[in-house]
Amino acid sequence: MTAKRLGRQTVALSDPVSVLSFANIGGKQEARGPLAGYFDELNSDAYFGQKSWEKGESAMQQFALSRAMEKGGITAEEVDCVLAGDLLNQCIGTSFGLRDFKIPFYGLYGACSTMGESLSLAALLIDGGFASIVAAMTSSHFCTAERQYRMPVLYGNQRTPTAQWTATASGCCILSRRGDGPYITHVTCGRIVDLGIKDANNMGAAMAPAAYDTLSAVLRETHTTPEDYDLILTGDLGELGRDIVADFFREDGIDLGRRYTDCGLLLYDREEQDMHAGASGCGCSAAVLSGYVLGGMRAGRWEKVLFAPTGALLSPTSSFQGESIPGICHAVVISSKKEN
Amino acid sequence: MTAKRLGRQTVALSDPVSVLSFANIGGKQEARGPLAGYFDELNSDAYFGQKSWEKGESAMQQFALSRAMEKGGITAEEVDCVLAGDLLNQCIGTSFGLRDFKIPFYGLYGACSTMGESLSLAALLIDGGFASIVAAMTSSHFCTAERQYRMPVLYGNQRTPTAQWTATASGCCILSRRGDGPYITHVTCGRIVDLGIKDANNMGAAMAPAAYDTLSAVLRETHTTPEDYDLILTGDLGELGRDIVADFFREDGIDLGRRYTDCGLLLYDREEQDMHAGASGCGCSAAVLSGYVLGGMRAGRWEKVLFAPTGALLSPTSSFQGESIPGICHAVVISSKKEN
Repeated sequence: MTAKRLGRQTVALSDPVSVLSFANIGGKQEARGPLAGYFDELNSDAYFGQKSWEKGESAMQQFALSRAMEKGGITAEEVDCVLAGDLLNQCIGTSFGLRDFKIPFYGLYGACSTMGESLSLAALLIDGGFASIVAAMTSSHFCTAERQYRMPVLYGNQRTPTAQWTATASGCCILSRRGDGPYITHVTCGRIVDLGIKDANNMGAAMAPAAYDTLSAVLRETHTTPEDYDLILTGDLGELGRDIVADFFREDGIDLGRRYTDCGLLLYDREEQDMHAGASGCGCSAAVLSGYVLGGMRAGRWEKVLFAPTGALLSPTSSFQGESIPGICHAVVISSKKEN
Repeated sequence: MTAKRLGRQTVALSDPVSVLSFANIGGKQEARGPLAGYFDELNSDAYFGQKSWEKGESAMQQFALSRAMEKGGITAEEVDCVLAGDLLNQCIGTSFGLRDFKIPFYGLYGACSTMGESLSLAALLIDGGFASIVAAMTSSHFCTAERQYRMPVLYGNQRTPTAQWTATASGCCILSRRGDGPYITHVTCGRIVDLGIKDANNMGAAMAPAAYDTLSAVLRETHTTPEDYDLILTGDLGELGRDIVADFFREDGIDLGRRYTDCGLLLYDREEQDMHAGASGCGCSAAVLSGYVLGGMRAGRWEKVLFAPTGALLSPTSSFQGESIPGICHAVVISSKKEN
């Protein structure tokens, strides 16, 4: 049986790949949010017991992978490959987090689309017969992201209304040839889309065109409509970006409806927690998926989910040099049933 | 036909994937080096016609991809996917370089192992039936790397004897189901290895253990010896790192012999150009492969090449925080014959 290419961007797996297990970890704000009950671990120490925030972010990845392996009943020696990345310069959250596991590793950089990218490539590696068990993982940390991208945290810089709050979280999914699901049935590879937004405090608007581009490719190439999904979930567009995506589809005569939301709108209580436009960071979609969403699918809450994390491919240097913000979005279709 | 897993790290492709075409570009120092005749383009302008070095690095990637497509007789619409990354924070050399091509894209971060990682995943995507034509690419730039990792270039900082010189270069290989070779026959996924080296001016020593780990996996899992290869090529270990790898194997009773060298030792004339321990940067191995090596294979100079670029997974932040330097090495076996 060979995988079926449904179009330039989408592959239907020949044999849907199971989520064997998943785990997540969050910080103080995540513990105060409405999804607190869907975390394996919540730690109010921003250092996660380490000497720096960056080492703390690595510790989160270590926890997420270790706990996911434990929940799946497997050891590091049984994992054929880890696909992971993060937002830190040179992805040090990942490389130092994974250093001691001795698992073959492909490093990714997809900004906040990384969980979509890692799940996609993990599913393809298994479906192609190249691996049996693959972990897909990412993380972000409010403090490491703030000081790298914006201002020293202690400076207490005022945030604009369109700004989002980088989640302090990590999520890990272990995919396997065997397992009782949920199953990844389709993978859609995104393209870089840049409509010229330059405001680094409005990433939702910058990433929305990429989300629209990839979600459109999924619907077009799989011949599905929004009604075929119980939940359509972008990564961390926040309120403004989510509305822009819905508007884009409305112009196409497509109503995404209430089944469409964004991980950035789920993680925090936006009235109680004052997070402005919502959560962001690649840990946001990873942690929301690796707890609330996959747990909900196992509990029968949703049967078919279109998961599409979105990344902003900028750096402080590119913004200082006057560049606009390219976005990218990688999507997977996840189903409770082993069919595609 | 299914790909054969030869071990935890190595896959023998079911149907070796052809290099359809390749192209490279270099800068001023590359033009003065012994491989100058193996470049598609050499430009003495460090800005490559752009307003900043970073935009110049993106321009190099644009050139390498465009020229490789031209040489392969294909258009951007025919490329199913690009797998690429670079050394810049958030990989902006790649994302801005690829922005206008509208080709589905998976971003990678493997530091200077990126050309090995991108070729590996590209070959697997094609062998798995998920894509027909995939481009693998990376770049580095002396000026963008110096100011990001070390000192402002104009400061004229003195370099230590073990320091290497980041290549200003980009290389692109387009892989395809069809073509007359050379062919990628095997892919070996590396593991993160860290023996505790902390000197960021001695990356060769830091990366050598990872190179040894991956090359050992290739030999062990494919049941080959160094004599089975006409050329064994690490990425950018430079003189010291190359010697350490040879020493490690000597302790195992294995003589890599003169067939083993390092891309960092090939790119510059080390007597004339005073590059200390040799070249580095992910553009080094990419450009050496996508010209000198693949051209030499087509000309019959080598029949079987083991290509194993090596990356140092550090950042300035990790070094400031007292961390050692983890390394990783991803390998592919390239053969003039379509067999494995």
